Amino acid sequence: MTVTDVCRTAAEAWSAVKGLTTARKNALLLDMAAAIEDNRAEIILANDADVAAARANGVSATLVDRLTLTERRMTGLVSAIRTIADLPDPVGQVVEGWTRPNGLLIERVREPIGVVAVIYEARPNVTAEVAALCLKSGNCAVLRGSSMAMATNKAVMAALDSAIARHDAVPAGVVRLITDPSREAAKELMRAKEFVDLLVPRGGPELIESVERHATVPTVIDGAGNCHVYIDHSADPDMATAVTVNAKTSRPSVCNAMETLLVHEELARDWLPGVLDELASAGVEIRGDATVREVWPKAVAAREEDWGTEYLDLVLAVRVVPDVGAAIAHIDRWGTSNAEAIVARDIDVARRFAREVDSGSVFVNTSTRYSDGGEFGYGVEIGVSTQKLHIRGPIGLTALTTVKNVVWGTGQTRVV
Amino acid sequence: MTVTDVCRTAAEAWSAVKGLTTARKNALLLDMAAAIEDNRAEIILANDADVAAARANGVSATLVDRLTLTERRMTGLVSAIRTIADLPDPVGQVVEGWTRPNGLLIERVREPIGVVAVIYEARPNVTAEVAALCLKSGNCAVLRGSSMAMATNKAVMAALDSAIARHDAVPAGVVRLITDPSREAAKELMRAKEFVDLLVPRGGPELIESVERHATVPTVIDGAGNCHVYIDHSADPDMATAVTVNAKTSRPSVCNAMETLLVHEELARDWLPGVLDELASAGVEIRGDATVREVWPKAVAAREEDWGTEYLDLVLAVRVVPDVGAAIAHIDRWGTSNAEAIVARDIDVARRFAREVDSGSVFVNTSTRYSDGGEFGYGVEIGVSTQKLHIRGPIGLTALTTVKNVVWGTGQTRVV
Repeated sequence: MTVTDVCRTAAEAWSAVKGLTTARKNALLLDMAAAIEDNRAEIILANDADVAAARANGVSATLVDRLTLTERRMTGLVSAIRTIADLPDPVGQVVEGWTRPNGLLIERVREPIGVVAVIYEARPNVTAEVAALCLKSGNCAVLRGSSMAMATNKAVMAALDSAIARHDAVPAGVVRLITDPSREAAKELMRAKEFVDLLVPRGGPELIESVERHATVPTVIDGAGNCHVYIDHSADPDMATAVTVNAKTSRPSVCNAMETLLVHEELARDWLPGVLDELASAGVEIRGDATVREVWPKAVAAREEDWGTEYLDLVLAVRVVPDVGAAIAHIDRWGTSNAEAIVARDIDVARRFAREVDSGSVFVNTSTRYSDGGEFGYGVEIGVSTQKLHIRGPIGLTALTTVKNVVWGTGQTRVV
Repeated sequence: MTVTDVCRTAAEAWSAVKGLTTARKNALLLDMAAAIEDNRAEIILANDADVAAARANGVSATLVDRLTLTERRMTGLVSAIRTIADLPDPVGQVVEGWTRPNGLLIERVREPIGVVAVIYEARPNVTAEVAALCLKSGNCAVLRGSSMAMATNKAVMAALDSAIARHDAVPAGVVRLITDPSREAAKELMRAKEFVDLLVPRGGPELIESVERHATVPTVIDGAGNCHVYIDHSADPDMATAVTVNAKTSRPSVCNAMETLLVHEELARDWLPGVLDELASAGVEIRGDATVREVWPKAVAAREEDWGTEYLDLVLAVRVVPDVGAAIAHIDRWGTSNAEAIVARDIDVARRFAREVDSGSVFVNTSTRYSDGGEFGYGVEIGVSTQKLHIRGPIGLTALTTVKNVVWGTGQTRVV
């Protein structure tokens, strides 16, 4: 089957999926969770093969870690599917409605989108989670995982297929895995305009650039996270330290980790050296501007490109700024519209930052690490949107729907 | 100035525009309306030149009509700007908000998008209306009208500029007209990804295809309107006739006019001939399937391509179908996701059609002609979206905003 054929199959299956009741969808999801549990041994075995191959190919320890399905992760995956079954169904929700002077009742109603394609990297839990999120929202899913996780993904798909096969109302094409690992196959997916209603690419800059260049299908881009934290001189110093350390060190490899710290100049001498000591003792390399190096000489000199780098590692760029306006201007210039935070006690400064920073999510007196579907209360997320249209920030189940207008009349006709 | 330079100027102007208060924006809009009134004579003179040139070039009467700014249309244009000043400002609206168990308050807030570009055809009223809609929603506008209307558009822009110049807080670049009429200039606009946050193309299939092929900027597509009306056998016959005639004949040249009539087979002998007589007497050419030609022999034979044609003219394709399911399947196959209607008294049939038809707007017991921002109560519309993401159906002021997450904390830090 070509990629286009896979997408066509999904599109043909959609007419059966979009009308499923919530009860039926939830029953399917619970069966999917049970099937994963029942096939736990086979899935782990397949994953062992993927991990062994990755190791043999000299893949980095970080990537091998992401690829590995431990027992704990398997349990997490199964419980994620059950969480999705428990989430409220967004389909059929009347978002708003009103009656016009001529008596027409206009309702704006959430509906499934159609065929949702997701391109993702090594984490094999994504396969089952995205399948469950798409089905819950009445969509079909076309999944393109990493070639590195192919054996695992096939084993997961086999388990999901066995659950789907037990539901007569649900055709086999509702979730489809693309098994061709070539870049050409990915491009074909990006261009399957006739059959794909939404593509969510989750990955590094190379994938995003490829999507921007080749995609003709509608996309919600899960792009880079060059996240900023600005510490205002009005900040509570202990809170400033706690948020800074949390944003950088609690999980440096994820997109909501801080990459640049902006500090008000009044804090450069008294507060900054202490927090840099604490970060350094946690293993963070500091790259600072001239003022930073003056007050904390162990810092490496930051170069222009440091402001634009998403390290995803224990490295931090630090800049001293004269005021909140300069911090906002720095973020305007270098930010990736993912997540930015401020620590401030001055209400005007905090509200100005919240209003003027043009980013998916702005955090006041808390850490950028909360830019996450789970932390927002969405249950399980598809990713984090760095674009402005359709959805910004964490992408929950609701973002997998579209809003249709339904207009109820009693025979009204229009004059002009 | 290259097109990219124009877009850069608009992007630079945005930081001043996005923070304007509603009062300031409304004052600017009222000054813009006054400036159009003050320069009425110059604008009409420029329009006379455009119209004369169009006539000399053998442009069709319909297009010349669209191009012509009559006194009545000038008055309509000025009052449209005042209507926009009166509309509620979507910027700053808190769409939803909730508090998490850890005390984080999450607010989802409407914000301007940035630089909005619009490509449109001959109607010169669009220039001022789109400028007003963009400014009201805190955006900058880059306008690319038809070369045929260039003199008119320049005269309108001069009037708008004179109003903008009277507002110190508003930089000159907030509304920009692209004066290079070449296709290359349009393509450059479609690719000005660094500066354009949203492109709305309004035009025929050629423009839409060009956007789908070349655009790298985010788009909301105002595409074709191959609109359907299905008459169920449960319909009130008089209502069915009134809606059918209205949907086809009240304004056949617009995108919400009906192009295909689908009729339940039980109505083929009794109801259909009468309505086709009425349509024919209004000058409508009927292209029917075999059953239609049997019951109404004057019909031309419909060919496969008739089901896919947006006539925008007094031509109608007519098909007899066995039931509502067949009508929905026909719309699935041939519809353009713009507007579809059903006339039915059977509540199950009506609700099934409303639920299953995958279109921007579905009308029950009323005419597709109501697919219109004004009729929805949006005041003035930017167009009608035929895509699924961001906005479906009539595009009002609200669709020119994006929803940002603002998270208020008290020092929370994340554990994992």
